[in-house]
Amino acid sequence: MAPKIILTRPLPAEKGLEGGALLDQAERAGLVRVVRWTKDEPVDRKWLLEELGKGDTDGLLCMHNGEKIDEELLEAAGSSLKVVSTMSAGYDHVDVSALKKRNIRFGTTPDALTDATADIGAMLALMATRRAGEGIRAVLDGKWPEMPWNPLLLCGHGLQNTTVGVIGFGKIGQTTLKRLLGFGIKRCLYSTSRVGAPLDSSRDYFKTLPLADYLGIEVRPAESYDEIARESDLVVLCCPLTPQTKHLVDAEFLSKVKPTACVVNTARGPVIDTDALVAAIREGRLASAGLDVVTGEPDIPADHPLVKEERIVLVPHIGSATIQARSGMSRDAARNCLAGVGVEGFEWANEVTF
Amino acid sequence: MAPKIILTRPLPAEKGLEGGALLDQAERAGLVRVVRWTKDEPVDRKWLLEELGKGDTDGLLCMHNGEKIDEELLEAAGSSLKVVSTMSAGYDHVDVSALKKRNIRFGTTPDALTDATADIGAMLALMATRRAGEGIRAVLDGKWPEMPWNPLLLCGHGLQNTTVGVIGFGKIGQTTLKRLLGFGIKRCLYSTSRVGAPLDSSRDYFKTLPLADYLGIEVRPAESYDEIARESDLVVLCCPLTPQTKHLVDAEFLSKVKPTACVVNTARGPVIDTDALVAAIREGRLASAGLDVVTGEPDIPADHPLVKEERIVLVPHIGSATIQARSGMSRDAARNCLAGVGVEGFEWANEVTF
Repeated sequence: MAPKIILTRPLPAEKGLEGGALLDQAERAGLVRVVRWTKDEPVDRKWLLEELGKGDTDGLLCMHNGEKIDEELLEAAGSSLKVVSTMSAGYDHVDVSALKKRNIRFGTTPDALTDATADIGAMLALMATRRAGEGIRAVLDGKWPEMPWNPLLLCGHGLQNTTVGVIGFGKIGQTTLKRLLGFGIKRCLYSTSRVGAPLDSSRDYFKTLPLADYLGIEVRPAESYDEIARESDLVVLCCPLTPQTKHLVDAEFLSKVKPTACVVNTARGPVIDTDALVAAIREGRLASAGLDVVTGEPDIPADHPLVKEERIVLVPHIGSATIQARSGMSRDAARNCLAGVGVEGFEWANEVTF
Repeated sequence: MAPKIILTRPLPAEKGLEGGALLDQAERAGLVRVVRWTKDEPVDRKWLLEELGKGDTDGLLCMHNGEKIDEELLEAAGSSLKVVSTMSAGYDHVDVSALKKRNIRFGTTPDALTDATADIGAMLALMATRRAGEGIRAVLDGKWPEMPWNPLLLCGHGLQNTTVGVIGFGKIGQTTLKRLLGFGIKRCLYSTSRVGAPLDSSRDYFKTLPLADYLGIEVRPAESYDEIARESDLVVLCCPLTPQTKHLVDAEFLSKVKPTACVVNTARGPVIDTDALVAAIREGRLASAGLDVVTGEPDIPADHPLVKEERIVLVPHIGSATIQARSGMSRDAARNCLAGVGVEGFEWANEVTF
């Protein structure tokens, strides 16, 4: 019998998602059986446990949002499960040690969303430093007519001559910096997972460093997170969420930042301690923040402190939300899954090795 | 007696506005008398006419917003008026032929706001193409919890591999393009006031063309506005408002654009025909728009069609709203005015010659 794949979210091929088309084709050719969660909302865990519990699942193609791939789930799946493929770059929702223990292979899609996510990082930096969130609220509330132009109205800070701290200097971090190089920034301090270590030039994937050189912009590794906090006018978070990066931006970090600084998060919500961020903004110890991700998303009501603070710009996790990125992510996730269950002609797009 | 200058808006030195400090110093030194409109709102025309009507005004330092410098005003001022200095780059609010007729010199501040305005152009391009306006509305309205992530939620278009059309390729247009070069665009078609003419390299003020070359991005003059409409994924308006550019983006222009395209306006509202824009967005003939300026601003109520359309991002004319830009603009406007009334030691920052 053809391998069985569980797909936890619709990937409609007719809407341009290449991964959906790949799975459809493989299914029509009898190369796989695909069991689908058909609603446009997070998969019901009970349904998923039951479906895995049949003990005949070879591959699981899952999403980041609302799904936890943990011991209980893998235990339910039993020994037939060969591959977990997540349609995301981050994998803080996956218990990798539980996968490792069972020799289950693991795929992610870190490439297709780089451009889209970097764009949102740059956008949030501009919106937060330029007080666009306040401006938009005023327009939506019909307050513009009573808010005539004056020379100091909604004045923010530009990015010219600033120091940008990039925490997490992988593909997304490098590309975000590449965007910002055109805005007249003065220098960049970055940190990779080994803080203080310079970027290996073979990992300068997009030739960001030579471009900075061409433009005369200094880019160097930060000595410490402390240095990034102290020196940066803009801190951009692009790191994976790990036990080490959880609450990396906490009360202590925020006690060191410039009062004119801005923090942008396109990584994962829990990299920031929400309470500490809100306190820093309220007390004027931090000028602004731009967030694509927050702890507890999507359960963020209108009266959430992050929504109420006018100096915080919050968008609903749209970092990878372009047709191009989502199609590429679905393609890579489908490839990882099809390769992982052993369908001939498919190669891994990206396998995470433990 | 020292020359008299009328200042139509407070420029508080203590809030970092250098022009305010220059005027204060000149006044304290007895080099000028400054008559001030003291409210943070557009100058009352009756007050201004009366003050000018005294016939002893040498210089008028005015703003763009809410002030018309026309025949009636200049007639009231009489022959004492030597200089009009506007704290703005654009001067569609000034009747230059009426100035010329009276040999009144005229200053503007086109330099200090270039970076700030270009940033807002790039920001609006990102916000509109990436549907950030819709995302922000959803978050503010508390709808995020009922809008769980799915692979097609709020998917927009990235700027990668796009053609960008820049209408008005002066300092702001060139700088806006320079920002966008880092976003993976494929090419740029631009138009100066002489459509079809290539940019004189001595006017490539910020070395935008060599940077594009370095990045392998084609930048060339458009043959016509038509070509810009047909070919562009993003149209950015950075031209002055003149009789020739009024309603440049009208129903005819919009009949030629790609349905996936975006129009950004950081120039002046009337460069776009509002009704035609709203119709194109509503009918799906244009994907999105990002506007810093609109016809009729600031009298834009919450039920204005431009505010109601979710695919339109509208910010309240914050293009030059940075402390750095506004301080520089006030400095240049003060210099123009002080030089124009003949105070020694001050040189024109920018004089417009007719």
